[in-house]
Amino acid sequence: MPATGATSPPTARSEVQRQRILREAASLFDLGGYHNTSMEDIASRIGLRKPTLYHYFKSKEDILFGIHDAFIDRLIEQQRARQSIAMDGRQQLLEIIMDMLQVIDEQRGEVRAFFEFYRELSPDRRESIARKRDEYEGFVEGVIRAGVAAGEFREVDPRLAALSLFGMVNWSYQWFQPGGRLGPRELAYVMWDLFVKGISKIPATS
Amino acid sequence: MPATGATSPPTARSEVQRQRILREAASLFDLGGYHNTSMEDIASRIGLRKPTLYHYFKSKEDILFGIHDAFIDRLIEQQRARQSIAMDGRQQLLEIIMDMLQVIDEQRGEVRAFFEFYRELSPDRRESIARKRDEYEGFVEGVIRAGVAAGEFREVDPRLAALSLFGMVNWSYQWFQPGGRLGPRELAYVMWDLFVKGISKIPATS
Repeated sequence: MPATGATSPPTARSEVQRQRILREAASLFDLGGYHNTSMEDIASRIGLRKPTLYHYFKSKEDILFGIHDAFIDRLIEQQRARQSIAMDGRQQLLEIIMDMLQVIDEQRGEVRAFFEFYRELSPDRRESIARKRDEYEGFVEGVIRAGVAAGEFREVDPRLAALSLFGMVNWSYQWFQPGGRLGPRELAYVMWDLFVKGISKIPATS
Repeated sequence: MPATGATSPPTARSEVQRQRILREAASLFDLGGYHNTSMEDIASRIGLRKPTLYHYFKSKEDILFGIHDAFIDRLIEQQRARQSIAMDGRQQLLEIIMDMLQVIDEQRGEVRAFFEFYRELSPDRRESIARKRDEYEGFVEGVIRAGVAAGEFREVDPRLAALSLFGMVNWSYQWFQPGGRLGPRELAYVMWDLFVKGISKIPATS
């Protein structure tokens, strides 16, 4: 967020507009699929003229990339914000699971775009997103590796354990219903319990 | 398989042709996406004339449905085949994980179609696939429920545990590389270890 000192500085205003376009486009992609949604559809949903939309994004793929980028940046920032806090591995995993379930709860369209329309990105943009995704996966793998080294977790393969955790959590975008019996934080506790008991040295007690 | 007694009976021959169309179409959908693949592309890949292709399938959506149907039928049949065998819950889960990883290893295109192009099916076909998918999920949930009742597993929520297991295993279609360091059966043991220790009453030992 740039600190310009002005009231409603253009940069901040246009950032808000950008966010709005990404959000609305994501939900259109979710409803009708990426292929079936046109720039026209996006402009009319937001009530923008097409040239104004093109001022913000040069193409539909530009928007799709913006969705991917904001999505993974959010997860990376949340993880980074915790790096300086003393927390054992179990607790870090709980927060990671919560971060992921929170986006699945709040940003359905973005999540689906991230998981299902990734291949629609151009190769260089795919690479840029893959790099960030690898960075995030590396964080989680690192938490498990450190837990194994500290004797908190069993001798599991940190990479395969991290990928298994991602699967368990990410897959819920296929079945998790916002507003249902369990909220994202409760579901996080269920998955945390399953996963952490699975890798833990501490025997299951119940 | 119909037993007609004839050499190369037409029904068997046409079943082989049908299978071949499904297989080749699935790999085209995987390479280029469902939207970007035409009936023309499918016919020319197999070396069929278009009318011949249309003799087997009336539309591209017909093919997509065939892929979905064969995919879930395979999993259901494998699970049914084991119903009469005495096997504890842990062991049943191992076989279920193996079934799923085996299709991920062998039928990449079909797996992707099943997970990513489901929404392209017409509503009534989606319902028919959803019914079979629910049946399969019910099998797995039942294995966990029975294990909890028998005291083999902890008091976990059988449905959420089953969905977590599906996530862990299914997600690997995003990262599992056939021909890599671990084959599907080895990876199955890694996931089984994580999951079964997570729900087990027997304390982790290493």
